[in-house]
Amino acid sequence: MEVKVVKDILGANERIAERNRQLLDSNNVFAVNLMSSPGAGKTSLILQTLKRLKGKIRIGVIEGDVSSSLDAELVAKEGVPAVQINTGGGCHLDANMTSSALGNMPLKDIKLLLIENVGNLICPAEFALGEHRKVLISSIPEGDDKPFKYPLMFHQADAVLINKIDLLPYLKFDAQAFSRTIKKMNEKVKIIQISCTTGQGIEEWVSWLLKQIEKG
Amino acid sequence: MEVKVVKDILGANERIAERNRQLLDSNNVFAVNLMSSPGAGKTSLILQTLKRLKGKIRIGVIEGDVSSSLDAELVAKEGVPAVQINTGGGCHLDANMTSSALGNMPLKDIKLLLIENVGNLICPAEFALGEHRKVLISSIPEGDDKPFKYPLMFHQADAVLINKIDLLPYLKFDAQAFSRTIKKMNEKVKIIQISCTTGQGIEEWVSWLLKQIEKG
Repeated sequence: MEVKVVKDILGANERIAERNRQLLDSNNVFAVNLMSSPGAGKTSLILQTLKRLKGKIRIGVIEGDVSSSLDAELVAKEGVPAVQINTGGGCHLDANMTSSALGNMPLKDIKLLLIENVGNLICPAEFALGEHRKVLISSIPEGDDKPFKYPLMFHQADAVLINKIDLLPYLKFDAQAFSRTIKKMNEKVKIIQISCTTGQGIEEWVSWLLKQIEKG
Repeated sequence: MEVKVVKDILGANERIAERNRQLLDSNNVFAVNLMSSPGAGKTSLILQTLKRLKGKIRIGVIEGDVSSSLDAELVAKEGVPAVQINTGGGCHLDANMTSSALGNMPLKDIKLLLIENVGNLICPAEFALGEHRKVLISSIPEGDDKPFKYPLMFHQADAVLINKIDLLPYLKFDAQAFSRTIKKMNEKVKIIQISCTTGQGIEEWVSWLLKQIEKG
């Protein structure tokens, strides 16, 4: 009985995600679902991306959080349309919440939509939002064993950004072994080492992102 | 309808948690539920705690993970009874999983049970396991805005350990403001700055823990 309920929820979610995708496509908007642990650097990456792409491409941002509107406020200061979703305790965004947020987003005025999911390495991986790409930010201080413990999200990601690479001298983290492990689980994944503090790797990320938008 | 299902699940969980608590009490075992984001340092804290309390108090460990048995293997190497729970995709431990693990734990041979929850700042807060205390490990690299974004877990914790304090020189993190915010949400909470790498604060943690076991 429990399994049935869960399956129905996921089936309904897939259908709404497909409708979101059609809405995005009909408005020529490319959407990226950004996922990570709490504090791995999703908002910092969005701010870096806005900085690099200002004047080049019009961007909108959906911010997902259990509580607070801190992130949407930070993003709105950069002068881009930002919509906050508060899940009210929920541990992930779903297609239905995303659908509501899309209704408040000026889709005709943007080309790229960055969706910051709730900070959680588990459930966000199970709920499609209608996005074109899934990007996972994994930060050095979390440790290099995370792909073994949270395999689904690493398996699904189109790109894994290894953030806080500037902290590497102070931590035990085998970046080569980490990348090898991820490639074994997901051979097509793009892996980029970045630091949202120093800016390292952000050019490479932005260039990968622009190529994905071209591909659609 | 959905809300009803969720309420039934939480109600059933509470009843099983109460049975777990009775089983623990009848065996004179004190249980601590350790919660945090992925990679904040739960396993490292357990290893530090085992080191300090070896020969002083008999400890058992339950390790909760979505996948893998890496943590239970690490802990078992220290010569203490360790049971791994794999949630198979689930984002938190619940009382029922804990009940199964208790069946595999030699309760008569231990005094302290450390339960490492799944790395997640959201759902573990909603599911009682039968524990006597809830301890939240929040690490410096996650940022000082976490209490605003994940309020329930900060609100419930009996102690918040601020881990990776050795990284403070390299990161923007206002430890005083962070502590003030938590105290406003939860005035009775014990806050301890620790580093599982350098050992800073571990004596204070262990001494707090031993006092809690005395109190029961």
